[in-house]
Amino acid sequence: MSSSSTAGQVIRCRAAVAWEAGKPLVIEEVEVAPPQALEVRLKILFTSLCHTDVYFWEAKGQTPLFPRIFGHEAGGIVESVGEGVTDLKPGDHVLPVFTGECKECQHCKSEESNMCDLLRINTDRGIMLNDGKTRFSINGKPIYHFVGTSTFSEYTVVHVGCVAKINPAAPLDKVCVLSCGISTGLGATLNVAKPKKGSTVAIFGLGAVGLAAAEGARIAGASRIIGVDLNSNRFHEAKKFGITEFVNPKDHDKPVQEVIADMTGGGVDRSVECTGSINAMISAFECVHDGWGVAVLVGVPNKDDAFKTHPMNVLNERTLKGTFFGNYKPRTDLPAVVEKYMSKELELEKFITHEVPFSEINKAFEYMLKGDGLRCIIRMDG
Amino acid sequence: MSSSSTAGQVIRCRAAVAWEAGKPLVIEEVEVAPPQALEVRLKILFTSLCHTDVYFWEAKGQTPLFPRIFGHEAGGIVESVGEGVTDLKPGDHVLPVFTGECKECQHCKSEESNMCDLLRINTDRGIMLNDGKTRFSINGKPIYHFVGTSTFSEYTVVHVGCVAKINPAAPLDKVCVLSCGISTGLGATLNVAKPKKGSTVAIFGLGAVGLAAAEGARIAGASRIIGVDLNSNRFHEAKKFGITEFVNPKDHDKPVQEVIADMTGGGVDRSVECTGSINAMISAFECVHDGWGVAVLVGVPNKDDAFKTHPMNVLNERTLKGTFFGNYKPRTDLPAVVEKYMSKELELEKFITHEVPFSEINKAFEYMLKGDGLRCIIRMDG
Repeated sequence: MSSSSTAGQVIRCRAAVAWEAGKPLVIEEVEVAPPQALEVRLKILFTSLCHTDVYFWEAKGQTPLFPRIFGHEAGGIVESVGEGVTDLKPGDHVLPVFTGECKECQHCKSEESNMCDLLRINTDRGIMLNDGKTRFSINGKPIYHFVGTSTFSEYTVVHVGCVAKINPAAPLDKVCVLSCGISTGLGATLNVAKPKKGSTVAIFGLGAVGLAAAEGARIAGASRIIGVDLNSNRFHEAKKFGITEFVNPKDHDKPVQEVIADMTGGGVDRSVECTGSINAMISAFECVHDGWGVAVLVGVPNKDDAFKTHPMNVLNERTLKGTFFGNYKPRTDLPAVVEKYMSKELELEKFITHEVPFSEINKAFEYMLKGDGLRCIIRMDG
Repeated sequence: MSSSSTAGQVIRCRAAVAWEAGKPLVIEEVEVAPPQALEVRLKILFTSLCHTDVYFWEAKGQTPLFPRIFGHEAGGIVESVGEGVTDLKPGDHVLPVFTGECKECQHCKSEESNMCDLLRINTDRGIMLNDGKTRFSINGKPIYHFVGTSTFSEYTVVHVGCVAKINPAAPLDKVCVLSCGISTGLGATLNVAKPKKGSTVAIFGLGAVGLAAAEGARIAGASRIIGVDLNSNRFHEAKKFGITEFVNPKDHDKPVQEVIADMTGGGVDRSVECTGSINAMISAFECVHDGWGVAVLVGVPNKDDAFKTHPMNVLNERTLKGTFFGNYKPRTDLPAVVEKYMSKELELEKFITHEVPFSEINKAFEYMLKGDGLRCIIRMDG
């Protein structure tokens, strides 16, 4: 299967294990089993921290599953491949992705969908599909996977359908952020909202995903990009991502959709909702212009939320769309997103606000919990 | 302005006047003033009855405005034109339309919208825009217009922006039904839902608009067209319009969206809602497949309705769109719809189930109130 000296062997390496909900991760020596059929084992070089890791680590909203190795934004190199893997080989530069592309189901065969039936994100599953077991263990005790990636480990095992092979010239310490959040926001704008050159766009939520959506609007040539956030401090930094105007709903007595309609002569051409707040979703829909406006929902709602609007808002020729991972098919589409960075069309450096060695991974959690910065790169060699 | 002998003169002719809400129309002799700036006077040859006429004649849901001349689906010939009218001349064959296209506002300039700022449907206005007065009178007493068309009159005056010039070879007794309902349903499918060849489509409501939406799906080459209606008697006739399967929500214990998901392996590719019932709107949205499904709302809701769904239904890559008059721009697009009929791609005869002479126009109201048939053609010479 592979020519590397470790192929077929258990690898012992460092991993940051979450033993309990909300408790600091502990760097442990773990055993990483060889990849099974349709799996690949990756050496992770850089990983970054995303809100979803923190959400499931806190385990406030879902069934806890511990001990577990989190991490799903990363860049690495294929160490070895399992049976039946034909399109990856040791040495390939890759991005592991939390959702996959089997290339065989009805979603993968559809031009429009990236919601693979086999490998669609599953946050409850802690095991690998091939045998229903984990590839991580400590002294024989299984350690659970997270969204099929578990990149907070020097080595990890991932289904081949969740691995995007990219240009080996791309710097993994930068493009690793394309594994999740940045592609989610960017694709929401470029693939789903599709603003025309010169159009107006509203972005709800100016975190990493929202700013990536703004970056998409900037790349598309939008003339006005209105950022909406409850934290006015975010506006200054947001300008780097193309945001031209800022609205803090708290500064106004009327609903933000009316504020935006007043600013734009009836509404924006496109809106992208990146907060997950149900009120922001409704505002994002109602702030687009009748006749042609398109609102795109990205943020993940609470379980009991209800999206509610007067149906005339729909009938007046508005469009509401939802997206998942920016509608990118991980294997098919991510390599081209990496090329957008290589050609300098897409800027990634501005999303990277911190860097820590792996040994200090808990600092990355602290930055995120404080709302300090956008992305913290974790160097696995440190 | 015009070479016809009546040009510039008041025309005395027959019109069916609604003197009071819900009372039979009375054929009266009315005076029809000459067209003013940007207006045209039409000789109506055929008109048909649409639910909207009946709804406003019953005046149960809105401010009554009487006496009024209803009628908005019709075919006619230009008798004379007012000042500034350059693209129509006496003798042109035309369809008057209840909503207009000024060609100058932001909506008319948008490729996507047909919701003209100047001439968008206005059901409350009973007068002409140029001078705020009516062109109809009986012994000097004004008779109000309806949606700028008032085609239940041998002659009527219409804004030039509400007149589509069509192929003079097209039989007006057939293509008159394209003025409103049939184009609304047809365009909802062809212009907005856009099903691909071989796809599955659900149509909610099998009245004239819904059957026109089905006709659109048939023309688009859909492989399965599922009709949903509370009246099972409608299925037999609906087969003529391409409906291949029928679901009566009353026959099932579970929501119709679940029934449709079971029938189709997860949902239809497209749905078109033509009833105006809020529950049908929600079902129509939730019955489309995740990943790529598109639901299109056509039916007009009640004032206090709320469209309500779990936002995950949106986030799972479903699209919700609304449409008005099938997204057709009246002047720009209707001539090509008439050509679809001329080339036999679109079948109109099956929509026409009754015909009455103008003197018996109240019979057309009776057919519609009984739910008997689809369209009743009213011959103005009878």
